[in-house]
Amino acid sequence: MAKDAISLHRKLRGKIFIGSKITPLKLDDIELIYTPGVAKVSQHIFHNPDQKYSLTSKGNNVAIVTDGTRILGLGNIGPDAALPVMEGKSVLYREYGKINAFPICLNTTDKTKIIETILAIEPVFGAINLEDIESPKVLDISRELERKLSIPVFHDDRHGTAVVVLAGLINSLKLAKKRMSEIKIVIAGAGSAGYCIAQLLNFEGFKNIVVVDSKGAIFKGRKVNMNKYKQEITKFTNPKEKGTLSEVLIDADVFIGVSGIKNLLKGNMIKTMKKNPIIFALTNPDPEINPLVAKKAGAKVVATGSYTHENKVNNALVFPYLMRAILDLKIQKITLDILCATALAIANIVSKNELTENHIIPILGDKRL
Amino acid sequence: MAKDAISLHRKLRGKIFIGSKITPLKLDDIELIYTPGVAKVSQHIFHNPDQKYSLTSKGNNVAIVTDGTRILGLGNIGPDAALPVMEGKSVLYREYGKINAFPICLNTTDKTKIIETILAIEPVFGAINLEDIESPKVLDISRELERKLSIPVFHDDRHGTAVVVLAGLINSLKLAKKRMSEIKIVIAGAGSAGYCIAQLLNFEGFKNIVVVDSKGAIFKGRKVNMNKYKQEITKFTNPKEKGTLSEVLIDADVFIGVSGIKNLLKGNMIKTMKKNPIIFALTNPDPEINPLVAKKAGAKVVATGSYTHENKVNNALVFPYLMRAILDLKIQKITLDILCATALAIANIVSKNELTENHIIPILGDKRL
Repeated sequence: MAKDAISLHRKLRGKIFIGSKITPLKLDDIELIYTPGVAKVSQHIFHNPDQKYSLTSKGNNVAIVTDGTRILGLGNIGPDAALPVMEGKSVLYREYGKINAFPICLNTTDKTKIIETILAIEPVFGAINLEDIESPKVLDISRELERKLSIPVFHDDRHGTAVVVLAGLINSLKLAKKRMSEIKIVIAGAGSAGYCIAQLLNFEGFKNIVVVDSKGAIFKGRKVNMNKYKQEITKFTNPKEKGTLSEVLIDADVFIGVSGIKNLLKGNMIKTMKKNPIIFALTNPDPEINPLVAKKAGAKVVATGSYTHENKVNNALVFPYLMRAILDLKIQKITLDILCATALAIANIVSKNELTENHIIPILGDKRL
Repeated sequence: MAKDAISLHRKLRGKIFIGSKITPLKLDDIELIYTPGVAKVSQHIFHNPDQKYSLTSKGNNVAIVTDGTRILGLGNIGPDAALPVMEGKSVLYREYGKINAFPICLNTTDKTKIIETILAIEPVFGAINLEDIESPKVLDISRELERKLSIPVFHDDRHGTAVVVLAGLINSLKLAKKRMSEIKIVIAGAGSAGYCIAQLLNFEGFKNIVVVDSKGAIFKGRKVNMNKYKQEITKFTNPKEKGTLSEVLIDADVFIGVSGIKNLLKGNMIKTMKKNPIIFALTNPDPEINPLVAKKAGAKVVATGSYTHENKVNNALVFPYLMRAILDLKIQKITLDILCATALAIANIVSKNELTENHIIPILGDKRL
């Protein structure tokens, strides 16, 4: 597979291209689309700024911005190595959302410079998609941009992942015959994804959520390895536990892995969970546990973020469609309400008859999405 | 025409799009182009940085960067109103150079911020095209970027315009039976284009060049309205003249207008020039003189930069083809040598039989380009 992927990329020399909508281009067209005709269009926008949405590509352009510090589960591999991932994302945006998504891989990891660069390139775009930037820096960037930009900021690792997790969880609970009000959920990973999953599950009504990072359960009053987002998490999660991942998993119903750590979860840990446990091992490219191992240890439902396994709980199910809605409806700020509604809509696409342990979530490309 | 151009743009909602090279996209493809397969490609680039050129679109991506301060001859109309022009340019890059050119319209006109933004977005691009940024700021930006970037900086208003002017001039002189060593050339406009045209004509061997700005001829020792680029110009132009445009045009052979001023040149000024004068009125969208007026006043050859007249001396004849060569040959710095060679190649495409007063330069799209 590694060889296949590399040789395919070598053959393509880039998975995206910038095309012209005027084909064939006749010489007579040039005086309309370029000089002198285009000057009239520019003057029209100068005098009527709102017209930029109807006379240019802006309203359908999205910048996929990364600084290369947290690419998939590979860590800080830099902006050059990030480009193939961003191009892949652009392909999915085109295929499923009919959106122009252009990769912006930044030569800086400095928070202020990242913010300034995005503010500087705003005029070309209808929305910003923050991607694979390390946490908590990216959460600061996201808040600052929401304050300063006049276009929406979609943070896929946060918004996209939280939506797809909630959608998958709603359907998994039906299969496992578990109730929202009674279950305990353990989230491994307190970066952007873990933070927003906890927020969204709480908003939706889940009451017993414990978020775990490398120092164990995050609880009110913990002193080590905290930041303001982890402080926020303590306000609505974990009433009492202080243990390690193994300890808090005892009698839990759901494990959600967004840790970036391969093989973090062991089969014997699953065996200590409640009956019919639900395992979402979402780290890419290598999940927190091999699905076969999880199944053998008694998991009722196993999902990963990868396209090599069943139950692809991957934000590709969310971002092209949600962004399409954001652009079309000119949504300025992405709220928890919008995210919940999106998750429910995705979950409901899987009908009662279709719902099985290996099909908790629609398949990418499902026309109903 | 104004109405036509606006309604065409309204219909298109952007002249460019970002497309996927993988069509149709099958679900099996996703594990190669996105997660998990793409992780192998990213890791491969991380360990072999040069591979970014063969595994991504970088080597064929060009940023068309503007701050909106000098859009065509319209002046400072801002980044939003600049976008249709940049998209038009992108269409021409695609059509004639098979290049992915993406508009970057900046929300800042600050020199340092422009430089920092371009440095920050470098990883995605194989070259930078600076476009319609006011002079002399853009010349400072260009020099600074050439020092700091590892990809080439093409400045179309300078490089592209100078090449197409030299190409057109070489052929015009054949028609007017004038010799390079004997003629006097007046350039109206001392911005980026005027500066580089003077440089290139001097490098090619033209000896009597006078550059004129709003204060008249630029000469050694002039105190008003100077900058370091105008100082440079005095080193190789204008041995003695201090007059206005009207005054220096007396007995001149060639007028090259890159002034940004509509109707700057009058018929009676042409009448004071030498026999068979050559008039390049290149300001867009409205030239320094209407070609019919110039012809009536005795001009042997008249060219404009616009697609509504004969003799389209427009840098669209240069930038897609020269950029193709820059990317393919991995040219790091654009020298006067390269520009001269390009101009000669373009001029020579027009064969002896084809060369007439209304056809001094190839038509855009000529397969020989």
